[in-house]
Amino acid sequence: MNDRKNNTTGLPVPTIRRLPLYLSFLKSNKNKKRAFISAPEIARELHIDSTQITKDFSFINVSGKTKVGYKTSDIIKIIEKFLGYHEPKKAFLVGLGNLGMALIKYNAFSKEGLKITIAFDIDTEKAGIEINNIKVFNINEFEENFSKAPVEIGIITVPSDHAQKVADLMIKCGIKAIWNFSATPISVPDNIIVENTSIDSGLAMITWKLNKNKPLIYKNRIL
Amino acid sequence: MNDRKNNTTGLPVPTIRRLPLYLSFLKSNKNKKRAFISAPEIARELHIDSTQITKDFSFINVSGKTKVGYKTSDIIKIIEKFLGYHEPKKAFLVGLGNLGMALIKYNAFSKEGLKITIAFDIDTEKAGIEINNIKVFNINEFEENFSKAPVEIGIITVPSDHAQKVADLMIKCGIKAIWNFSATPISVPDNIIVENTSIDSGLAMITWKLNKNKPLIYKNRIL
Repeated sequence: MNDRKNNTTGLPVPTIRRLPLYLSFLKSNKNKKRAFISAPEIARELHIDSTQITKDFSFINVSGKTKVGYKTSDIIKIIEKFLGYHEPKKAFLVGLGNLGMALIKYNAFSKEGLKITIAFDIDTEKAGIEINNIKVFNINEFEENFSKAPVEIGIITVPSDHAQKVADLMIKCGIKAIWNFSATPISVPDNIIVENTSIDSGLAMITWKLNKNKPLIYKNRIL
Repeated sequence: MNDRKNNTTGLPVPTIRRLPLYLSFLKSNKNKKRAFISAPEIARELHIDSTQITKDFSFINVSGKTKVGYKTSDIIKIIEKFLGYHEPKKAFLVGLGNLGMALIKYNAFSKEGLKITIAFDIDTEKAGIEINNIKVFNINEFEENFSKAPVEIGIITVPSDHAQKVADLMIKCGIKAIWNFSATPISVPDNIIVENTSIDSGLAMITWKLNKNKPLIYKNRIL
């Protein structure tokens, strides 16, 4: 449990992806009242190697005490700080299909550093409604709303063949980061942050693994 | 555009994850009426290296013709076969929060080889309702429903601290693959397929990248 100083810009991606996991584990009912916790204890519950946990914590400058472990409230506060929970980022969401609707109803976001301020859709009938305190506008009104109250993040939940067009509009307006839930990758300039979360690729992995021991036949030949 | 024979079990994971992307691109309105398409054309639109596309297609035994390219309908049919679209897998979903609700309303699944047959929730008030032709039962009735009409896939959309319990129930009943949308990884025997899709880790990546040039201060020291 060392206390190495690391530049935050050098943080490994897998470490960052594990931070919300540590956080949700440490904040769960089970651990709420524990003052200290050790890396092996976390390792057992989360099925992550104990030395990996020690490394991850040292990357974010969380230090533990021999035989006692880490102070739970310290880890929670530092991770929350790292993930920007103290200063929520504002976002516009485009595409109010089922996934878009679920995301604007997902109350946990506000506790996780994200505040969706406005949602947009191409369907004129949706314009004017309000869901979970988030106003819905027609996509034509994106630019106007952005100049009135700019945001840093754009969330794309439109069908694949509209994703690039929406991304272009977001970038033109000045959005800095795009969270793309469509199945298509989008093309952006180097200074724009992109994160892809594709539900389709997850499903593809599962069905392929379930099928992989069965022969696949196409046009009378085994694939 | 070679025609190497590959064992389906040896397919690289990144290739599998790209298959739904190729499919959605080739089936989009833009390409609907095209009989042939070349790897460089796909490369330009999807921002994937052209030789990578040729490799991916050869892995799944799709062969093209020099100067003409690949037959669009052939690629579509072969990928659909690979992903099991011809024989939808049945699934139970547990956890009808916002994400669970979005997934059972997501009509595209039925075209993508997945059929959610029953949804479960701990909330007794939700039991008995029917959404998108999917009946909702109390979680206590999971085992009984499974023995009546077994499924291969279990989808977990419950809060993190309930995920392992739900996974254990699924495995005990005989489910072969678990699609885990909770923030916590789950522990399963070696013969069980697990796919994790965590929305929280995507958000962590974005907020961290947006914050990384700002100094983070905790307890009067710079992290």
